[in-house]
Amino acid sequence: MGRTSESREKLIGAACELMRGRGYGAIGVAEICERAGVRKGSFYYFFESKQALTVEALRAAWAVEGAAWRAILGTAEDPLRRLERLCRSQAEAQHRSKREAGSVHGCLFGNLALELGNQDEVVRGCLKGIFDEQVDLVHEVLLDAHRAGDLPAERATRAYARAVLAQVEGMVLFAKLDNEPVLLEGLWPQIAGLLRGV
Amino acid sequence: MGRTSESREKLIGAACELMRGRGYGAIGVAEICERAGVRKGSFYYFFESKQALTVEALRAAWAVEGAAWRAILGTAEDPLRRLERLCRSQAEAQHRSKREAGSVHGCLFGNLALELGNQDEVVRGCLKGIFDEQVDLVHEVLLDAHRAGDLPAERATRAYARAVLAQVEGMVLFAKLDNEPVLLEGLWPQIAGLLRGV
Repeated sequence: MGRTSESREKLIGAACELMRGRGYGAIGVAEICERAGVRKGSFYYFFESKQALTVEALRAAWAVEGAAWRAILGTAEDPLRRLERLCRSQAEAQHRSKREAGSVHGCLFGNLALELGNQDEVVRGCLKGIFDEQVDLVHEVLLDAHRAGDLPAERATRAYARAVLAQVEGMVLFAKLDNEPVLLEGLWPQIAGLLRGV
Repeated sequence: MGRTSESREKLIGAACELMRGRGYGAIGVAEICERAGVRKGSFYYFFESKQALTVEALRAAWAVEGAAWRAILGTAEDPLRRLERLCRSQAEAQHRSKREAGSVHGCLFGNLALELGNQDEVVRGCLKGIFDEQVDLVHEVLLDAHRAGDLPAERATRAYARAVLAQVEGMVLFAKLDNEPVLLEGLWPQIAGLLRGV
């Protein structure tokens, strides 16, 4: 296969797929090329390093997931119902992972954040940008909930948006550890409590 | 150095230290031996594999951390104050990591759970045992809080104990991602909300 942009896309797709299952350290360039059906020489034509491909793969994954988040969170529905639907979509993604791959993969971004967090500044910066966008999206919904009279101002903050996502990431960690997506059924009541509790 | 039990302890200590900073995949047996000052031949006298050492290192780390958790959670103090103190100790551990190592290391157990979760059944089983003990310890405190009239029965459950720890793990993930332990200052109010919210 030549050095077409199709090869580039295949490498990005293969990296996403492999890293979703097994993280960063366990995956090598040779395996990514094999999965993509692209020669190793071509890899370095498109990407300087595994790190450079990883950044592109994370951006590609978030382009898809972020669009789904915006579709769920950007409706005119009751704001807290939108958040509840986001929680349900996260649970469904882990159910699907278990059905299709036999195991709960967890969150690609969370997995790489904990594996690489303080070791790779470039990947960390990319992940931070993705999580910042997630926090912004949830923060917008919290502000909508406040305007609708469903949330006090002191909970409609960026800090509480981060706490909502922390609950998602933490419960996904337990679901992965137990290989049991059913654990995520309680996610919304927990987050609703966190937002409404006094 | 001979094949003394001191060498074994040194290997466990070195593995803990290195994995706390850089996870599992990025660390090799040679580096662990070098850090411990133990010859590679001796490594395989004590441990069958890196996996076997990792299980011992996780158990050793939890023996120390678990004792600290018990000291905090097992007092006669107001139950929810004990949980608040646990949150503060988690924040302090990440402040210390940043002060001493220059970066927020996060939680050794959470890091390895997300890096290895669905790839290594032996390490996963070990981590699951550690998190199960953590859930039990927090559950006991929630039951105490219920008996003291501070928590309704439907929140004094194992599921809510897990939800408390999920908030801890999730916020530690954000602190690691931002390399900013100050993010953990809000941990207790968030967990108190989660427990008391309706």
